[in-house]
Amino acid sequence: MSFSEYPSKLLESAVNEFASLPGIGRKTAFRLVMSLLKRDPAEVEKFGETIIKLHREIHYCRNCHNISDSEICLICSDEKRDKSLICVVESIQDVMAVENTRQYKGIYHVLGGIISPVDGVGPADLKIDSLEEKVKRGGIKEIILALSTTMEGDTTNFYLYKRLNKYNLVLSTLARGVAIGDELEYTDEITLGRAINNRNPYQQ
Amino acid sequence: MSFSEYPSKLLESAVNEFASLPGIGRKTAFRLVMSLLKRDPAEVEKFGETIIKLHREIHYCRNCHNISDSEICLICSDEKRDKSLICVVESIQDVMAVENTRQYKGIYHVLGGIISPVDGVGPADLKIDSLEEKVKRGGIKEIILALSTTMEGDTTNFYLYKRLNKYNLVLSTLARGVAIGDELEYTDEITLGRAINNRNPYQQ
Repeated sequence: MSFSEYPSKLLESAVNEFASLPGIGRKTAFRLVMSLLKRDPAEVEKFGETIIKLHREIHYCRNCHNISDSEICLICSDEKRDKSLICVVESIQDVMAVENTRQYKGIYHVLGGIISPVDGVGPADLKIDSLEEKVKRGGIKEIILALSTTMEGDTTNFYLYKRLNKYNLVLSTLARGVAIGDELEYTDEITLGRAINNRNPYQQ
Repeated sequence: MSFSEYPSKLLESAVNEFASLPGIGRKTAFRLVMSLLKRDPAEVEKFGETIIKLHREIHYCRNCHNISDSEICLICSDEKRDKSLICVVESIQDVMAVENTRQYKGIYHVLGGIISPVDGVGPADLKIDSLEEKVKRGGIKEIILALSTTMEGDTTNFYLYKRLNKYNLVLSTLARGVAIGDELEYTDEITLGRAINNRNPYQQ
C-alpha cells in the first residue's frame, strides 16, 4: 500500500505547520499535534482561533511601532511617560526587557531590526525615517540608542548618530561594563578594558 | 502605568496558548508567536485553520483505532493486508514505527495507552474490549503483543495474555535481544542475559 509515513493527511498537515516554526523539528511537531488531539476540542479550537486573530487584530503603535491592541500603544498613550526621551531598540522583545527593569520613564522607538549587510538589511528596511520625522517635529530632548553590543549594533548606532546628530538633542548609548554577577576571570578583555577606562568613583 | 509584561492582550493570549504545549516554555512560546507575526498573514491563517480542523475532521479507524481521514483507515481497508494477523500497540506513534520497518503485512490494534496503576490507567481505560470482540468474531490466527519492554508493558502483556489465551490463536511478543548497532559493553545485563539464553544458530 502507499503509506506516506502519516496515517492521515490532516495529521500530516498539522505536523507540517508546527514543524515550520523555528526550532521545532518533525518529531517535536508530531508530539505537539498528538498532545492537541488528547485535549478538549473546545480548547484546541480556541488555540486555532487565537492564531487566526494574530495578524487580523494585532496593531503596531503608529508612534513607536511597538505591538499594541490599539492604534497608539499603552506606553505612548500614558500621560506619566516623558515624551521628550526616546529609547531606540531593535525589537519588541527589547521594549519588554527595558520595561522589566522598571527604571525607564520615557517612550520607545522600535526599529524592527538592525543594519546587517550580511543579512541584506539596510537602513531603508528599518523604521529610521519615521524616527527622523519625529525628531524634526521637535520636542525630543534625548535619544538613547539601546542596541546590541555587536558589530551590527555598533554600525546601526553609528548610522543613527550620523543622521540625528545635526538636530539639537542629546544622543546617548547604554553604559558598557562588567555585567552584575559576572566573574572577572571570565569577562572578555574588550569589556574589561572598557570597564577599567570608564571606571566610576566608589560609592558606598 | 500598569504594564502586565506583554504590550498586547492578544499577544499574551497567543503566548499562553503556545506555552500550554508540552515542553514549550514562555520564552520559546514568545519566540514562536513573534515568528508567526513576521510571516505572511495568509500562511498564519492556514496554520490556525489546520488546528481548528484537527478535532473536527480527524477520524479514528472503527476497526483498529488508528488515526485516519475516514471511518476505516488505509491499513484496515487495504486488501493486501493479512487480516488474520493483529499487531497490538500502545499508540499511533507505534503503528508508524512498525510501518516504517516495511516488514509487517498484518493489521493493527491501537490500545490507546498501557496499563499503569501509578498513572491511574486500568484495563477499562484501554481499547481491550473491542480487541476481545474482534477475536470472538473469529478469523484471527495470531496476535503480536508489540508493547514497550517496561514494567507497564509487561503488565499489559500479562493481562492481555490472561484475557485472550482462552481463544484458539497464537499470542506472540517481539523478540528481545541486543539492539543492532549496540556495543555489548554498554548493553544492560538483563537484555544481555536474555540474549544469551535465547541465542540463535549462526547464519551466514
